Amino acid sequence: MPHSTTPPLGVGMVGYAFMGAAHSQGWRTVARAYDLPLSPVLAAVCGRDPGAVRAAADKLGWAAAETDWRALIARDDVSLVDICTPGDSHAEIAIAALEAGKHVLCEKPLANTVAEAEAMTEAARAASERGQIAMVGFNYRRVPALALARRLVADGRIGTLRHVRVSYLQDWGEDSDLPLVWRLQKEKAGSGALGDLGAHIVDLAQHLSGELLTGVSAQTETFITERALPGGGPGETGRVTVDDAAVFTGRLASGALTSFEVSRLAAGRKNQLRIELNGSDGSLAFDLERLNELEFHDHTLPGAEAGFRRILATEPDHPYLEGWWPPGHGLGYEHTFTHQARDLVRAIAEGVQPEPTFADGLQVQRVLAAIEESAEKNAVFTPVPAAE
Amino acid sequence: MPHSTTPPLGVGMVGYAFMGAAHSQGWRTVARAYDLPLSPVLAAVCGRDPGAVRAAADKLGWAAAETDWRALIARDDVSLVDICTPGDSHAEIAIAALEAGKHVLCEKPLANTVAEAEAMTEAARAASERGQIAMVGFNYRRVPALALARRLVADGRIGTLRHVRVSYLQDWGEDSDLPLVWRLQKEKAGSGALGDLGAHIVDLAQHLSGELLTGVSAQTETFITERALPGGGPGETGRVTVDDAAVFTGRLASGALTSFEVSRLAAGRKNQLRIELNGSDGSLAFDLERLNELEFHDHTLPGAEAGFRRILATEPDHPYLEGWWPPGHGLGYEHTFTHQARDLVRAIAEGVQPEPTFADGLQVQRVLAAIEESAEKNAVFTPVPAAE
Amino acid sequence: MPHSTTPPLGVGMVGYAFMGAAHSQGWRTVARAYDLPLSPVLAAVCGRDPGAVRAAADKLGWAAAETDWRALIARDDVSLVDICTPGDSHAEIAIAALEAGKHVLCEKPLANTVAEAEAMTEAARAASERGQIAMVGFNYRRVPALALARRLVADGRIGTLRHVRVSYLQDWGEDSDLPLVWRLQKEKAGSGALGDLGAHIVDLAQHLSGELLTGVSAQTETFITERALPGGGPGETGRVTVDDAAVFTGRLASGALTSFEVSRLAAGRKNQLRIELNGSDGSLAFDLERLNELEFHDHTLPGAEAGFRRILATEPDHPYLEGWWPPGHGLGYEHTFTHQARDLVRAIAEGVQPEPTFADGLQVQRVLAAIEESAEKNAVFTPVPAAE
Amino acid sequence: MPHSTTPPLGVGMVGYAFMGAAHSQGWRTVARAYDLPLSPVLAAVCGRDPGAVRAAADKLGWAAAETDWRALIARDDVSLVDICTPGDSHAEIAIAALEAGKHVLCEKPLANTVAEAEAMTEAARAASERGQIAMVGFNYRRVPALALARRLVADGRIGTLRHVRVSYLQDWGEDSDLPLVWRLQKEKAGSGALGDLGAHIVDLAQHLSGELLTGVSAQTETFITERALPGGGPGETGRVTVDDAAVFTGRLASGALTSFEVSRLAAGRKNQLRIELNGSDGSLAFDLERLNELEFHDHTLPGAEAGFRRILATEPDHPYLEGWWPPGHGLGYEHTFTHQARDLVRAIAEGVQPEPTFADGLQVQRVLAAIEESAEKNAVFTPVPAAE
Repeated sequence: MPHSTTPPLGVGMVGYAFMGAAHSQGWRTVARAYDLPLSPVLAAVCGRDPGAVRAAADKLGWAAAETDWRALIARDDVSLVDICTPGDSHAEIAIAALEAGKHVLCEKPLANTVAEAEAMTEAARAASERGQIAMVGFNYRRVPALALARRLVADGRIGTLRHVRVSYLQDWGEDSDLPLVWRLQKEKAGSGALGDLGAHIVDLAQHLSGELLTGVSAQTETFITERALPGGGPGETGRVTVDDAAVFTGRLASGALTSFEVSRLAAGRKNQLRIELNGSDGSLAFDLERLNELEFHDHTLPGAEAGFRRILATEPDHPYLEGWWPPGHGLGYEHTFTHQARDLVRAIAEGVQPEPTFADGLQVQRVLAAIEESAEKNAVFTPVPAAE
Repeated sequence: MPHSTTPPLGVGMVGYAFMGAAHSQGWRTVARAYDLPLSPVLAAVCGRDPGAVRAAADKLGWAAAETDWRALIARDDVSLVDICTPGDSHAEIAIAALEAGKHVLCEKPLANTVAEAEAMTEAARAASERGQIAMVGFNYRRVPALALARRLVADGRIGTLRHVRVSYLQDWGEDSDLPLVWRLQKEKAGSGALGDLGAHIVDLAQHLSGELLTGVSAQTETFITERALPGGGPGETGRVTVDDAAVFTGRLASGALTSFEVSRLAAGRKNQLRIELNGSDGSLAFDLERLNELEFHDHTLPGAEAGFRRILATEPDHPYLEGWWPPGHGLGYEHTFTHQARDLVRAIAEGVQPEPTFADGLQVQRVLAAIEESAEKNAVFTPVPAAE
Repeated sequence: MPHSTTPPLGVGMVGYAFMGAAHSQGWRTVARAYDLPLSPVLAAVCGRDPGAVRAAADKLGWAAAETDWRALIARDDVSLVDICTPGDSHAEIAIAALEAGKHVLCEKPLANTVAEAEAMTEAARAASERGQIAMVGFNYRRVPALALARRLVADGRIGTLRHVRVSYLQDWGEDSDLPLVWRLQKEKAGSGALGDLGAHIVDLAQHLSGELLTGVSAQTETFITERALPGGGPGETGRVTVDDAAVFTGRLASGALTSFEVSRLAAGRKNQLRIELNGSDGSLAFDLERLNELEFHDHTLPGAEAGFRRILATEPDHPYLEGWWPPGHGLGYEHTFTHQARDLVRAIAEGVQPEPTFADGLQVQRVLAAIEESAEKNAVFTPVPAAE
Repeated sequence: MPHSTTPPLGVGMVGYAFMGAAHSQGWRTVARAYDLPLSPVLAAVCGRDPGAVRAAADKLGWAAAETDWRALIARDDVSLVDICTPGDSHAEIAIAALEAGKHVLCEKPLANTVAEAEAMTEAARAASERGQIAMVGFNYRRVPALALARRLVADGRIGTLRHVRVSYLQDWGEDSDLPLVWRLQKEKAGSGALGDLGAHIVDLAQHLSGELLTGVSAQTETFITERALPGGGPGETGRVTVDDAAVFTGRLASGALTSFEVSRLAAGRKNQLRIELNGSDGSLAFDLERLNELEFHDHTLPGAEAGFRRILATEPDHPYLEGWWPPGHGLGYEHTFTHQARDLVRAIAEGVQPEPTFADGLQVQRVLAAIEESAEKNAVFTPVPAAE
């Protein structure tokens, strides 16, 4: 029931699992939290199983259900295609949607290969000339505390950068009863913790620092190599073809040293994305398990009263907070999708390309490819090709 | 667009400020997160200013707007009246709604006086015999970490209770430019930090412990006694007629010692509700500024490996989590309203009175009255009258 | 082996249990950490059991052992008498030592009764006119982080005080096998958690705020009322005659509200002294279980970048740190006794009375007496008599 | 004044700066905290400047002062030589001391080169056959919380190891006024953060896991390449010849992935050594800035009540705690030297070689050499030679 004078923006979503549910919450909520120039309408959701997609449409609040993503793209009431499928289908859907004249939001990682990501970026570039918008869903950029971190870095508050260290740790892979789900198969998922978690932290390290990685040195590992086949008989197992974990180091353009770690076997760490930046004038630290907090050390203060201060990123003048609650009333994980929707809707209305672009997604893909190459070559430092 | 086979539950809300926005988010979201026997429909919202309430209806997603709460109650498409106004109007609206055969959800505190709360409780009792449901909105009971805390206490995990200590600290009152808003006027707000914050922590202390307070000893204070009149000329001020802060101690039925503190002038504490329970077999600690975490000390473990453990209350088998995200993907403040809506909708469908009842709200009011009486009588220990 | 040109200061210590061991470590270490005008010499230690005191002297590093404290006081090589006995003997020993012309350091609480504390204070006053020094051992004043807190308050960094809240929680009393030790007997210990832990936090609240308490309202409780008699037969128990826990509220001279809690039955809290001060311009928070850290919120900073900052009180310009290690190399509990020794030795050399004085100790005793009186009188607000 | 019946152990210390002061505190204190079979006597300290070493002897409590370390070694009253000099002199002094029949404690890193470390290890091996003891001072092994961590790993409490991540961050190098001190010169210090901080964390990672590193991949950096010459004129600078920071990854024998980072330019991190181990059954986490705490996640507990628990490593049955204070009364940095002294004295009395041995120190040196080699070879994975 959006305001009658606000023009609608028809959204069609492909996929309705975890990411689809999270995106739906963003689309349903964004106009309730923010004043927007366009009113998102949850026009249709798409999935292969007719009964399941119909149930998902009802549950998540989509007006219609489709079983063929080409039909979804073709709908007149869909102006924006939101892609929430596994990575192996991103390129085909995104390129088709862009060629059909639609705006596109694509979940991360942008694609499973650099080649796909390049084709998508080219399609986005061409579409951009026709006034279309394409965005990749690195939603953590829009955690308020991390948006505040970016603002402090951009304002020069931490000075010359020395270090970025990031880890993203989960532990669901430690469950030995876990079957061989799609996330553990290379042909579906592209890679394991690296593509899933590593894509996030590579993007964040570059986004927060405002610099690109010039090269990386990496090791990867699959600790649990056999898993029960879903639907298989007792003792029937299949081979895990993706990594469980990766450690890598890198260099940013300024020469700053970086260290990275991702794992699905870090017992007790449920969704712990930690990032710290150290600069000549200050430092920033963040932990996704406490996502309303940013720690800031101002190194220009007298030493006797300096220290990491815990900023609750819930003040009215913090990024994205104008739509929410009074100070101290914290937000959650899903709010990042509302914020993403806000920025994307405004960008579409204004005709301005929002970040992160498909080119940004491609660049992350190139870093991931360099990581895999380094891991295969005894961790040797491997340059990340620059955008042409 | 809820599933067609689920019967609707028409909701009418009175008030659309902070609480109204939060409740709206709960109503809009609940059927998306949970499978419900009834589908909440945001039928109408009510406020006195026609233009403002119309805008609020559009913004918050309500189908219709009303300017007279009596008209809202009279609507056929409204089965549940959700009261989000200041405390001075709770009794009149709630009683009228109950008498009109509607279910009622009333924001806390239940009323501004014990007499009003008693009348409301009597009306709820009578309505209950007609199958109507009434509930008071102590939403913090439905923070997952606190619901987990209640479960651990009920399961005997902390043994015999010794202590409950609770503080609820904010700092917006420290702003000397803040004008004399309604929350600072006794005739509107009933009391200050005591009714606003104290009601929450009295309810929580009793709910988590499973015991009632038998008496209290209290001191209150108004630190900033004059504030600028809203709309007044330069230098025109009015008298603050409510408390800024209160400290009080009490006894639970078992003899456990309790300590409480509320303040609006605790610089740097934005919305810090801390609660700790110590028992013979364990302890629990919680901080609302980190609402996804519960700290649990199991005192039955060997001392050499015991300690407060930080449970991220985001596991699938934690209370309310079945509707949300994978482990470690935290929730926010507003989710408490979704959880409240879930439990209320299910209770209405099942015809079972949910907690907290109006009688629970009345009991909290009696504690608050005893606190005020004690504060007037030199902090002397003042019994809380038992429910008759 | 102190530097030959530094005059010695002969110390005689009475008592060699926990406090005696801690004071010994302070005396042995102080000249190694700081440059002092006098060199403390561990001349003699005193206890009733000849074998035990001789062993303690060897273990703790005292040159001689005495079995009669009067003999210790009479020794020519003892200029300073350090009293580490239970509270019931403080007055007699301290007064005798002062009358014998010795300087005195007396462990807290100064005495078990106000009358004793008054007599001691009078003796100290008289001795002061003869150039003697008397000091009471509230050692937590000399935790560097708390000395820094005092400095920040004195410098006006937190503005007008609103609140002080302090709790001191331990859990050794929760052990049901614990026998009826002297600390649980009123005639030895004077009181329970109140005198042992409460004395510390009353002193700290007043010291850090720079204000005195004008009155208090209190409740106390003994949860475990019978304990096995030490050396008794199976099932033989005796009555616990002191409190296990106390909650109390108070007022400081400025009108600031205070809340206090002490307990020996707070499962999982080993030695947790927490203190927080809120003022119009800032707040301070401290936890003794993390004693190298002080949290400081500067409320005069822009809200978007304010927050509690964790100051590691280990910088060279932090109080007492000039004698220790590089930044970040933390100190422990026992260092407070070294710092106390430093200040006392310097005060003796300079002939200047150090804080806390016996009069300070007496004032704390008056607060404790008012707490006990209030607890007997239904928690009614009970004034603390002012010093005449 | 140790107990007359305990035989003495004469200690001679070379060097009296930071490490010398810390070791002195350990030697002075150890017999006061623990019952020992030998009584350490602080016989003599050695340094080149006669006045300065005499003053240090007085200040730190050593009976005699020497200006030639050969003279110190030759003293009859010196049975144990404690080497606290910069790394370039370790080999010469240690070998001479061992050849002279003395026991040796050598500060870490064992040496500046692998060749030196090999010679020292050979000398220690030969001396060992004559009943002499040699130990290298990786004092952090003796932080009680880390000794507890080792115990838990050894007891199988974390299961099969997946990850070790360690960082050791300081920020004193960020001070642009810092002159070119010896720690910044390769010929004195051997390396920078790598040798100073990296030696600690390589040793800890191996010690806690109970495994050796099989290879490493590394990057190093010197961010501030020119510093003022000490005693030089305005603008006179010299070249910094050691690293400011290093990031490296590695493999343990079991295949567990490791990540490491050291820096002297991590603004706000004063002495932050963080280590975390993840295994199939649990995880451990530690931060040297909170050295009394160990975090332990028991992954075998039900998920709904699992979480990292904060164990205060101050219980009587925690390692080294029998000598100290009641629970919750924390220790500090310097206590590690007392613990080291305790274990060394007992080992000498019992004639049993204590850990870490010189061979352990040599192995760390080989890892550091492999790190430097990898850093020169584009971070390629470089094997650590096994001990022959």
